[in-house]
Amino acid sequence: MTPDEFRQRGREVIDWIADYMERVESLPVLSRAEPGAIAAMLPDTAPEDPEPFDTLLADLDRVVLPGVTHWQSPTFFGYFPANSSPEAILGDLVSSGLGVQGMLWSTSPACTEIETKVLDWLADLIGLPAAFTSCTGVGGGVIQGTASEAVLVAMLAARARAGGAPGLTVHCSNQAHSSVVKAAMIAGIGRENVRLIDTDDSLAMDPAALARTLDADRRAGRTPFFICATLGTTSTGAFDPLEAIGAAVENAAPGTWLHVDAAWAGAACVCPEHRAMLAGVERADSFNFNPHKWLLTTFDCSALWVRDRAPVLDALSITPEYLRNKASDAGAVIDYRDWQIPLGRRFRALKLWFVLRGLGAEGLRSHIRQSIALAQDFESRLRGDDRFEIATPRSLALICFRLRGEDARTERLLDALNATGEVFFTHTRIPDPGRPGATRYVIRAAIGGVWTRAEHVNRAWRLLEREAGRTLRM
Amino acid sequence: MTPDEFRQRGREVIDWIADYMERVESLPVLSRAEPGAIAAMLPDTAPEDPEPFDTLLADLDRVVLPGVTHWQSPTFFGYFPANSSPEAILGDLVSSGLGVQGMLWSTSPACTEIETKVLDWLADLIGLPAAFTSCTGVGGGVIQGTASEAVLVAMLAARARAGGAPGLTVHCSNQAHSSVVKAAMIAGIGRENVRLIDTDDSLAMDPAALARTLDADRRAGRTPFFICATLGTTSTGAFDPLEAIGAAVENAAPGTWLHVDAAWAGAACVCPEHRAMLAGVERADSFNFNPHKWLLTTFDCSALWVRDRAPVLDALSITPEYLRNKASDAGAVIDYRDWQIPLGRRFRALKLWFVLRGLGAEGLRSHIRQSIALAQDFESRLRGDDRFEIATPRSLALICFRLRGEDARTERLLDALNATGEVFFTHTRIPDPGRPGATRYVIRAAIGGVWTRAEHVNRAWRLLEREAGRTLRM
Repeated sequence: MTPDEFRQRGREVIDWIADYMERVESLPVLSRAEPGAIAAMLPDTAPEDPEPFDTLLADLDRVVLPGVTHWQSPTFFGYFPANSSPEAILGDLVSSGLGVQGMLWSTSPACTEIETKVLDWLADLIGLPAAFTSCTGVGGGVIQGTASEAVLVAMLAARARAGGAPGLTVHCSNQAHSSVVKAAMIAGIGRENVRLIDTDDSLAMDPAALARTLDADRRAGRTPFFICATLGTTSTGAFDPLEAIGAAVENAAPGTWLHVDAAWAGAACVCPEHRAMLAGVERADSFNFNPHKWLLTTFDCSALWVRDRAPVLDALSITPEYLRNKASDAGAVIDYRDWQIPLGRRFRALKLWFVLRGLGAEGLRSHIRQSIALAQDFESRLRGDDRFEIATPRSLALICFRLRGEDARTERLLDALNATGEVFFTHTRIPDPGRPGATRYVIRAAIGGVWTRAEHVNRAWRLLEREAGRTLRM
Repeated sequence: MTPDEFRQRGREVIDWIADYMERVESLPVLSRAEPGAIAAMLPDTAPEDPEPFDTLLADLDRVVLPGVTHWQSPTFFGYFPANSSPEAILGDLVSSGLGVQGMLWSTSPACTEIETKVLDWLADLIGLPAAFTSCTGVGGGVIQGTASEAVLVAMLAARARAGGAPGLTVHCSNQAHSSVVKAAMIAGIGRENVRLIDTDDSLAMDPAALARTLDADRRAGRTPFFICATLGTTSTGAFDPLEAIGAAVENAAPGTWLHVDAAWAGAACVCPEHRAMLAGVERADSFNFNPHKWLLTTFDCSALWVRDRAPVLDALSITPEYLRNKASDAGAVIDYRDWQIPLGRRFRALKLWFVLRGLGAEGLRSHIRQSIALAQDFESRLRGDDRFEIATPRSLALICFRLRGEDARTERLLDALNATGEVFFTHTRIPDPGRPGATRYVIRAAIGGVWTRAEHVNRAWRLLEREAGRTLRM
């Protein structure tokens, strides 16, 4: 394809996406494809000769869309949102067009310097202490692909700082994201050395239980080296108490690396009224949240800040001859390949830069506030209908609820809702306060899509009322 | 930005990229920005209010371009190419537009099934045995971000298969990519347990040396569990002899995982005439190459195939309740989150699908053949000028050369070439055959850009002639 053909075909793809944005709410949110159905529409080998671009475009409707679960649908309430805003799409398009590989500062200084600067902006926007920014020359931010990679990088840095201590153990709550255990598996720490700390009634980590476990480990000759606190757990949006955790760590295992996983909830800190969760963050060694969840920046974009970059480099830096260059040798620049698992890296800062500038801080705050207002509205409707119970208190824009009575009802309700194609919710299980050791099945409603407005939450509510009625009559 | 604004602004971005494609060869290939210069053009905080999109677009020229090293310039000959073709850019744009997160089959069946199918196509296109495809129900392909992640995933699967054996060691040649050592560091194997096997005069792994090292490890009670063979080393494009390596492994450490890193050179296997490198690949457990290098698929897209997916899942699978779903529980589908380090994943198969269909197998072959023909031409010019010596035999489209005499001459020549802004080359050091233990500084010319044609190689050659003359007169 020549640049001129690209000009023409590019317009067609832009139009296809704009059309998609306009019609996504009319498509079944959860794909109805059966296993193998999409694959069966493809031939068994690649074509020998080029196919016309029109065929490719047509196949987006014929092959791809039936197999898509529409994360950008305004009635997608599953998992957490994966915001893809127009601004981010265009920023990322520029990144593809430039085709830059930013492994080293010298392989595109703008790729590194815009990233560093924009992560300083973002740290400031969410109220992180300046110690996490590059202004100190010691700490700083970096874009990772996902929160899973962020926690792995932090864990590796913590291990480097622990300097060969024996019997390493990881501590996080029993509600922490599965990526903590996965990181421990990858790093060779072993999942059996991850201590899942008890949580309180709100499903937040119990700092006293943490202190006891840290103490027990140390008395047994083990070395707690990495503690992960979660702000906004994936299951129910619970907040671990950072300040009390920091104090417990300093008492029981001083100097241990404290990582904060705020993958989803961190975005809310762009609003000053939601920054209470950050109290105690000064004690943290690393902090992570995903602009690609609830902050309008197309996947993948996970922001990780560290107070001290040295242990990260100790864990991940290697310089073969073919990557040596004067700027790096002089120590005058950041080479982000040493801050991440991969060597190569895309110019991901562009999409974040476009989002922060195209929407402004006020635009981001308004997105968060609107999501939370919609969630409050949804919550009040649930509270006003005594067939439902709120399973855990609303956390920002996440609500976990269920039908009163046995789990099977709520399971049937979820299946019925998702089968309509008009909404998509997911589920989780939470401890049953009435029956120690047992759990309850709950529906999660995570609000915060780019296109989600009051009318969509209203529509979801009416559907919920109808399907609850049907389920209870079954 | 509304969908309609996106329609308008999207066209402007497409036009900006088309213009960039047309003018990239007129821009200084290596960025001339001094450290800090790009960052200094940005304010210290994000704007409170939205900035006009025109300002963002203008800043691409004002702020970004001066800080870009132009990987897509037709006279970029550094590192390896990072092909970003129009077809791939548009496929990736669709991926951003859909904003799909394909961690599970159910979160977008098309994201998983098109990936599986397209990797089967690609395995067939490069002549990989069917054992690596999903047709077997046992093996299959997956898109990783980078070859670094691919080797890490393979190493973790190998460790899972080794099942707790003591004293694990990794074996690769002393020319293997730094990502092998980095993976061992990440996995907690330790860089001290990576055996860097001697190479022969062509810088290919010596299978007899491998056999001796494996044997020594086993006699010392160690467990060699992961061997990485390289097809086309980063430094000089050397090919480890797969067949002899497989035989050495079966003799000295039967059953050990054999990973093949063909990150750059694997692309050439789309041409039957370059498949000799694959002889012996039947013995491999995993095979990796990067379509984002020389196969026209915008970064990031690294293709990894395994003969047996079970150990990959053993190493990387965890299922918290909030990710459970009927399709996964039934075992009827692939959930690619269990084949990778991160949990979340982009719909990266779209760009590869667009490339394979938009260009056809013949289009890919013609890109590879054209690159190699240009490299042959460049090589013959070097051979015809006795100021130069070819340092290692041309490997596909990579040539390492130097000025005869002391290293400093070649270093000065490289600096002078890159300072012109008209070309970009990188360097490496290779063993000096005349002086055991010593190395020689050589310039690497890696040909294979999307827009590179004979005129660009001609221009680079004329520049090389001129700058060699100046360097030798200094």
